[in-house]
Amino acid sequence: MNNPGPPAEFGLIARHFRPLAGPGSLDLLDDAALLEPPPGRHLVFTADAMVAGVHFLSDDPADTVGAKLLRVNLSDLAAMGATPLAYLMTVSAPRDTSDAWFAAFAAGLARDQARFGIALLGGDTTATPGPMTLSLTAIGHVAPNAALRRRGAMAGDEVWVTGTIGDGALGLLALQGRVPDPDGWLANRYRLPEPRLGLALHGVVSACMDVSDGLVQDLGHLCRAAGLAAIIEAGLVPRSPAALAAGEDWLPTCLTGGDDYELLMAVPSNHTDALLAAASAQGCRVTRIGRFGVGHEVRVLDGTGLTIRLDRPGWSHF
Amino acid sequence: MNNPGPPAEFGLIARHFRPLAGPGSLDLLDDAALLEPPPGRHLVFTADAMVAGVHFLSDDPADTVGAKLLRVNLSDLAAMGATPLAYLMTVSAPRDTSDAWFAAFAAGLARDQARFGIALLGGDTTATPGPMTLSLTAIGHVAPNAALRRRGAMAGDEVWVTGTIGDGALGLLALQGRVPDPDGWLANRYRLPEPRLGLALHGVVSACMDVSDGLVQDLGHLCRAAGLAAIIEAGLVPRSPAALAAGEDWLPTCLTGGDDYELLMAVPSNHTDALLAAASAQGCRVTRIGRFGVGHEVRVLDGTGLTIRLDRPGWSHF
Repeated sequence: MNNPGPPAEFGLIARHFRPLAGPGSLDLLDDAALLEPPPGRHLVFTADAMVAGVHFLSDDPADTVGAKLLRVNLSDLAAMGATPLAYLMTVSAPRDTSDAWFAAFAAGLARDQARFGIALLGGDTTATPGPMTLSLTAIGHVAPNAALRRRGAMAGDEVWVTGTIGDGALGLLALQGRVPDPDGWLANRYRLPEPRLGLALHGVVSACMDVSDGLVQDLGHLCRAAGLAAIIEAGLVPRSPAALAAGEDWLPTCLTGGDDYELLMAVPSNHTDALLAAASAQGCRVTRIGRFGVGHEVRVLDGTGLTIRLDRPGWSHF
Repeated sequence: MNNPGPPAEFGLIARHFRPLAGPGSLDLLDDAALLEPPPGRHLVFTADAMVAGVHFLSDDPADTVGAKLLRVNLSDLAAMGATPLAYLMTVSAPRDTSDAWFAAFAAGLARDQARFGIALLGGDTTATPGPMTLSLTAIGHVAPNAALRRRGAMAGDEVWVTGTIGDGALGLLALQGRVPDPDGWLANRYRLPEPRLGLALHGVVSACMDVSDGLVQDLGHLCRAAGLAAIIEAGLVPRSPAALAAGEDWLPTCLTGGDDYELLMAVPSNHTDALLAAASAQGCRVTRIGRFGVGHEVRVLDGTGLTIRLDRPGWSHF
């Protein structure tokens, strides 16, 4: 007479996560999911965790939390030149998390699933006595030997970025009341980064990564991977109207703050036209900001050619 | 003159996690990992999270925490009949976590990687103001259409389990001082479950899952998936000498406690010999404990044929 009815955990999953489940998920009812790999393709994997109070604000709208969790991982797929396929997610939630929070969180995921062509494959939901802690593993696919890599920049290659730099860091400061953000544009950029998927960069760029921990620090990664130096001109780094309106005092924050999720690329100078064509096809802005050279440092020059000293190169989550 | 030296996060990864990184991980230096799927195989994915104080004890030895994190996921692969391939992991650690803790955590993973034939593919390390929160996505592979499933049990099939049931739940109680455990055997079973990989169960079992939330509750999942009932005899449920020594008062705990990570199988009665041969080939104990039938309940019978009433069928992590 023991009726093993599903406990709360299973109700949560059925209400909010099963509607997100795609092919191979087996409706989240089995111990694991099944995936037939796309024929002739290699798979690309990335995993990122987000903790309330560290990577997002506890009072961020739940739909943006779900979307950001997915997008920071999609940005890693974009940096490899991969096409999104599926994702797994674990959610460790405080026991007093409302059903409405889960509903909005799932709605944010559902919208982005439709937009980016990806679906939930599996995961786990648990309680935590700590802050909401989310982990997502994204799976993409790419043609063999076509993945973009961090290594590969050559001396003389130009440094290019997509979009605008610094909005995410300023958006966090805006949400903390430290930077004016009259129309909420900066906050929106912090909450909803734009993964630069779909750019045909294979054979065009010699190295690529996404800027998540600060432009200067992340450029250092490309330099170390290639055994090179880089010089960028602060005046060339693309900033949004909202970032410019915040004032020049915030320039160092833009150069070193995290949460950009734009692509940082090494581009041979004779590939400029191909890069511009690839970007134009996706309606994506790209900007040349500097050049790789011999050495091992990243230098940022002001308008007079002098080196700008920065207190820290970027952001560490630890 | 800004030297973008790697911050603490990268040192941690280099010291402790890079040595775990396998083929396709790109030494954890890129934005994502690359994997060429094994030709002709389907992939199997599972993800589980573990939170200190919920799924393991904060003072559990760190090497067992790493091993358990991997093993609970390997148990899901085992339940699908899959062969381990690679894993991704996110670690959200309190800022005061010692380097020694990370070293031991990684050592536990390294030992199990060698034993189970799996390697680290990628992941993320972040700080958290809350308890240590770990998430792991395991990837396995299986022949097309050979994955074991939860659905598929037929009326008349026998209910079988691997290993012994209840040790994990009693082990947690032992660590809390509520159950005697003179030689630490039960605690060890709680900390280091044994994933039942490598059993040749395709074509032998009609349904399979791993017991992680309590035998009775998990048997309910097999029943619901098949639209069936099941009756098990408590006296047939295999218990370890340590579990038996704890006394009959703990029988309900063994039947409903979590953390077994044994396989629960539906087996047509004419497949018994094949099951025993598959188990024998791996040195794995299997025990028949009951039968599936028409209906929709799980009943547990005592030695006189009376139904045992249980306060709860199993364990919810939420």
